[in-house]
Amino acid sequence: MALLSPLATEIAIPACALVGIVFSLVQWLLVSRVKLTPEPRAPSSSSPGSNSNKNGYGEYLIEEEDGVNDHSVVAKCAEIQSAISEGATSFLFTEYQYVGVFMVAFAVLIFLFLGSVESFSTQSQPCTYDPSKLCKPALATAVFSTVSFLLGGFTSVVSGFLGMKIATYANARTTLEARKGVGKAFITAFRSGAVMGFLLAANGLLVLYIAINLFKLYYGDDWEGLFEAITGYGLGGSSMALFGRVGGGIYTKAADVGADLVGKVERNIPEDDPRNPAVIADNVGDNVGDIAGMGSDLFGSYAESSCAALVVASISSFGIDHDFTAMCYPLLISSMGILVCLITTLFATDFFEIKVVEEIEPALKKQLIISTILMTVGIAIVSWIALPSSFTIYNFGSQKVVKNWQLFLCVGVGLWAGLIIGFVTEYYTSNAYRTGAATNVIFGLALGYKSVIIPIFAIAISIFVSFSFAAMYGIAVAALGMLSTIATGLAIDAYGPISDNAGGIAEMAGMSHRIRERTDALDAAGNTTAAIGKGFAIGSAALVSLALFGAFVSRAAISTVDVLTPKVFIGLIVGAMLPYWFSAMTMKSVGSAALKMVEEVRRQFNTIPGLMEGLAKPDYATCVKISTDASLKEMIPPGALVMLTPLIVGIFFGVETLSGVLAGSLVSGVQIAISASNTGGAWDNAKKYIEAGASEHARTLGPKGSEPHKAAVIGDTIGDPLKDTSGPSLNILIKLMAVESLVFAPFFATHGGLLFKIF
Amino acid sequence: MALLSPLATEIAIPACALVGIVFSLVQWLLVSRVKLTPEPRAPSSSSPGSNSNKNGYGEYLIEEEDGVNDHSVVAKCAEIQSAISEGATSFLFTEYQYVGVFMVAFAVLIFLFLGSVESFSTQSQPCTYDPSKLCKPALATAVFSTVSFLLGGFTSVVSGFLGMKIATYANARTTLEARKGVGKAFITAFRSGAVMGFLLAANGLLVLYIAINLFKLYYGDDWEGLFEAITGYGLGGSSMALFGRVGGGIYTKAADVGADLVGKVERNIPEDDPRNPAVIADNVGDNVGDIAGMGSDLFGSYAESSCAALVVASISSFGIDHDFTAMCYPLLISSMGILVCLITTLFATDFFEIKVVEEIEPALKKQLIISTILMTVGIAIVSWIALPSSFTIYNFGSQKVVKNWQLFLCVGVGLWAGLIIGFVTEYYTSNAYRTGAATNVIFGLALGYKSVIIPIFAIAISIFVSFSFAAMYGIAVAALGMLSTIATGLAIDAYGPISDNAGGIAEMAGMSHRIRERTDALDAAGNTTAAIGKGFAIGSAALVSLALFGAFVSRAAISTVDVLTPKVFIGLIVGAMLPYWFSAMTMKSVGSAALKMVEEVRRQFNTIPGLMEGLAKPDYATCVKISTDASLKEMIPPGALVMLTPLIVGIFFGVETLSGVLAGSLVSGVQIAISASNTGGAWDNAKKYIEAGASEHARTLGPKGSEPHKAAVIGDTIGDPLKDTSGPSLNILIKLMAVESLVFAPFFATHGGLLFKIF
Repeated sequence: MALLSPLATEIAIPACALVGIVFSLVQWLLVSRVKLTPEPRAPSSSSPGSNSNKNGYGEYLIEEEDGVNDHSVVAKCAEIQSAISEGATSFLFTEYQYVGVFMVAFAVLIFLFLGSVESFSTQSQPCTYDPSKLCKPALATAVFSTVSFLLGGFTSVVSGFLGMKIATYANARTTLEARKGVGKAFITAFRSGAVMGFLLAANGLLVLYIAINLFKLYYGDDWEGLFEAITGYGLGGSSMALFGRVGGGIYTKAADVGADLVGKVERNIPEDDPRNPAVIADNVGDNVGDIAGMGSDLFGSYAESSCAALVVASISSFGIDHDFTAMCYPLLISSMGILVCLITTLFATDFFEIKVVEEIEPALKKQLIISTILMTVGIAIVSWIALPSSFTIYNFGSQKVVKNWQLFLCVGVGLWAGLIIGFVTEYYTSNAYRTGAATNVIFGLALGYKSVIIPIFAIAISIFVSFSFAAMYGIAVAALGMLSTIATGLAIDAYGPISDNAGGIAEMAGMSHRIRERTDALDAAGNTTAAIGKGFAIGSAALVSLALFGAFVSRAAISTVDVLTPKVFIGLIVGAMLPYWFSAMTMKSVGSAALKMVEEVRRQFNTIPGLMEGLAKPDYATCVKISTDASLKEMIPPGALVMLTPLIVGIFFGVETLSGVLAGSLVSGVQIAISASNTGGAWDNAKKYIEAGASEHARTLGPKGSEPHKAAVIGDTIGDPLKDTSGPSLNILIKLMAVESLVFAPFFATHGGLLFKIF
Repeated sequence: MALLSPLATEIAIPACALVGIVFSLVQWLLVSRVKLTPEPRAPSSSSPGSNSNKNGYGEYLIEEEDGVNDHSVVAKCAEIQSAISEGATSFLFTEYQYVGVFMVAFAVLIFLFLGSVESFSTQSQPCTYDPSKLCKPALATAVFSTVSFLLGGFTSVVSGFLGMKIATYANARTTLEARKGVGKAFITAFRSGAVMGFLLAANGLLVLYIAINLFKLYYGDDWEGLFEAITGYGLGGSSMALFGRVGGGIYTKAADVGADLVGKVERNIPEDDPRNPAVIADNVGDNVGDIAGMGSDLFGSYAESSCAALVVASISSFGIDHDFTAMCYPLLISSMGILVCLITTLFATDFFEIKVVEEIEPALKKQLIISTILMTVGIAIVSWIALPSSFTIYNFGSQKVVKNWQLFLCVGVGLWAGLIIGFVTEYYTSNAYRTGAATNVIFGLALGYKSVIIPIFAIAISIFVSFSFAAMYGIAVAALGMLSTIATGLAIDAYGPISDNAGGIAEMAGMSHRIRERTDALDAAGNTTAAIGKGFAIGSAALVSLALFGAFVSRAAISTVDVLTPKVFIGLIVGAMLPYWFSAMTMKSVGSAALKMVEEVRRQFNTIPGLMEGLAKPDYATCVKISTDASLKEMIPPGALVMLTPLIVGIFFGVETLSGVLAGSLVSGVQIAISASNTGGAWDNAKKYIEAGASEHARTLGPKGSEPHKAAVIGDTIGDPLKDTSGPSLNILIKLMAVESLVFAPFFATHGGLLFKIF
């Protein structure tokens, strides 16, 4: 048995989760110290009652040097922030209404399908893996799966919504802090990101832990049943993520592309210019797409890999021996992750201080390296205290003996593979511009394709190592390893859009050019790390899907998935096609929505007198509404494709073909996801390279508005839906189909394959 | 036993091949009647000694109406034609020198690897599938595989070279005939295409047939050994095709992109303008890429599917019962195909006559429909007379009973799937332009992704039907079914570049605008059918690869390829990555070569005085040399990737991982190939849509040089490497890796998997 007693485990997990929540609240408190209400212009010495000097610091502000009125700027920032916040909140609420209807309908479906497996019998049945014992009836699995599905969806909503809230709370504050220096602004943005990261990681863990303990009251000794029911949590999380990612992705890019095509290309006005009617929609988009969407995506991965690991473990020696601590190994890894990320965060916010622009990007990258190194030690500790030195794992019908150090290697290889994928992604997206619009696009596409190579080898090695050591359990914990530093990863990810928004607010509030320069520097570093974040998200999605696939195969009682059978092969080739179908839908959606936005923006420029001269205000609300309506309408077809495919294939073609579909979509989808994200990232950076004009070469290409810059803007615009809608949404495609298959596995195994049964 | 006696089979196959060869020579003769030497301006009544009236017809020529001197125009056409022909010949010879060295080296490798399987023993060994009998030694397989490899390579060279020769022989003749009417020009171009189609189909069949009969002198009763050795023929054909497609693809697109970027975009001169220094290279490219490359690609598919079918049949009841006629079923299908295509061709050239432009495209499409319908009957006849009513097929260790009507369905489903894929491809590429460069590119990408859906379902259904009926033999004959109308398919395909070149020659020779209009109409129809041809090529490549994969698995004595083993899964995901790696290489190659071309063309425009004014001649030869050098240099890395991957994976990771790699690259590669081809085709047609100005909408976007037209040209330029280099080359990637694995299967099964043996 494990060194850690069950009681200690029962205490350690919620304790770590609570530490994470408290830490995130502290960060929020620190951010909230930056006041958005103009304070009385007191003398610079500290007045009694105020916390310290103005805004908590004693420096002069750029605005003051420039003689810009502090009051009006702060008020304007607050006003813009509240417009963005309102737009984002209203979009998310509308989205949640739609999704709520879907969730309830799907919950009913889960109940009916899973209940029908044993014809809604309330009798206990012999267990699948040990027929000498009695297990809870399928009806119980149906009920508890439904409950955990709703719980997963709810937790995802809360995570995404809170993330969006803190992001829109922090963006104007970052702008204001930028007046004091780049370091202050960095810390504000980064702390806000950390709020989201820690809240999400800790919430996910805590809700899962509570659910397990509550379900245990009913299931008692039947751990198989318990953890099968828990898989609904992953499905719920990922279903929300589907709509978050796809809807949010369409929203943000419709606004962005629309704003750029008219504003930057046709009218030659800068990014985030307040005269552009789509500018608020664009900034709202960053929050609903890159923050709420990314948050629910990673939460989904996290929930799913935990569920996959738990369900495999429950039918292994942990479950059979009722070794609670070992059973909770995945949760303990996540708990350790929270502690490690907490320490890591302090390196960015407290142990060191950013003083100049050049230090931002290394500081963010160091976060990843530090957390990975610390987490390696953390995993070793958890593996040592929470696992017996040797145990057996269920491996598609046979048992496999695993040593605790082998499982440590499984988690570790996933963790380090994530770091490698992240840095490779960053390397490939940081490429420079190639002459001419067409050539730039051709080289960008080639670059995106090329950037797939190393991540795929990293994933393949992780799979091979963890698969060889501990079968599908190894894959699941490798995925958890990659996600164990999720709090830090998300902090860095969320930092990007916050800085981006901060820059937008500075521009819109008419603040000095020097402030915009500072926020641009923050944003540039954020773009780099966003690429890293996307790499992480895709890599973990690949591992998670494979783990879910393995759990599905186990639960559907398939022992081989043989490519040399027609049923499996057609599944494989059709599955490999699905990411293309899905991408075609999402890209077309962005294109259509962007065209509508372009028309509206053009209309406003043409019909509102004085708009170009800055004398009249544009109608921001109409643009927000176009993005909202378009994204809600357009997310339905791709959503339906993802949700219906496993159901249709499972019901009509059966579990073998479904296995093929899952394997095919996994191996194909991960490539498109990586290449789409990186192609888009490379074009984005090529444009930024010219705009920044940091090198001699860049200056010969620039300035803004030159032919090369226009060509680069075309590339960037093409890349937008690739990198922010299609690419990231594919994570969800491959994960969601796998977790859905897992949840419905008993139903498909019992009632599926109708077509083959008929013929 | 079959109705057709072995003797009748022995006669029928070469007879059909000879009929095909004679038919193609007749077509050549008819084309050669168009004289390229200016004839004395005799009175229009027929003079004795001349075949009939001028150029064999009595009509007035447009040139005469326009008062253009006939002599100088004809001489100019002849001069340009010989420049194109010389450029193409010199490129192909240089290419063959490089490839020749590779072929010899690889032949040595084949001999050494296969010979080493039984340590170069000259003793007969117990047969793999029937150990009670003695089979020829592995050394014999090594020797004969090497011979058939060289034979396949040689036949491919001959096919590609002759195709290029007739194409460059026909292009100026098509131009001259266009003076008499669009119908005459169409027939000249189409007949020339038919020469290539029939020569290739008949040659391929005849050489294979002769090789089988010669090898039989040694192998006698050992049919397994015989047909295993014959697989080298497919490998040889595909190896040549690799370099033909990749080298030719880079050549043609480097020249095309280079010519367009400077000529059309920067200098605003028309396509094929003689002032453009890259114009000859561009026209040469059409011949070496679209003609010789496409020819060797389809020849490879054809040779491989025949070999795959034969090798599976040899270990089935046909081989065991020594049923020669049934054994030769694949060859009989191809023989019937030649006859069917012959009749089909007459529909285009003799039964009906093209009078107006609008009839061209339907006439070409009818060719496909007629040949498919006739071939369905043909397959039924062959299946009825050449097969026993019931027989058994080897199915990965077990035997499967197949009825002759089931095999008819297998071939038929492949044939009709090809037609469906062709027409879907055509539908998706005929889409119209979307506003703006970036939006056009986004919609084009989405369209390409979407165009994958139906073809994949068509392929999946073919696979399922033929796999279910007759295991891997069914897949192989389904591929053959798709390729059975290859003569017609190639005729249509080759027609396109010939018309394209004809237009180029008209432009360069300074002929009247009305002639250019006629050749443009021919070319436009050719573009549509080129899309169909690409669809065919990809669809057949998918089926062929699967058949080869099945034959490989059989030969390597693997009975299941289980995705749920780490060895196979890592193969699957890495295999799915290879098409991306390969595409990255080919696209980068085109980009780099095009940049060199751009620089040279710019240099000539800037340094040659009077070039823009048409007073000085550009230096065509340097541009031809740049394309030649670049393509020869750049084809090495992608070629190495394709050729080395199976060797490295087989030797170090073994046959299971290699199975995964093959399955992964197949299911992933086919998607990218289809989407890349169709995306490129759609952009090309969007540009043509604006240029043609046939509708009200198109006229509002045009004319040439307008902003929308410029945007469309950007899309077209991006699409060029996708549709003519990367996309089609992927066919070769998936086929060649499979056939190479098949040839080396005994070696890998004996000596492979070193890494796993060590650890």
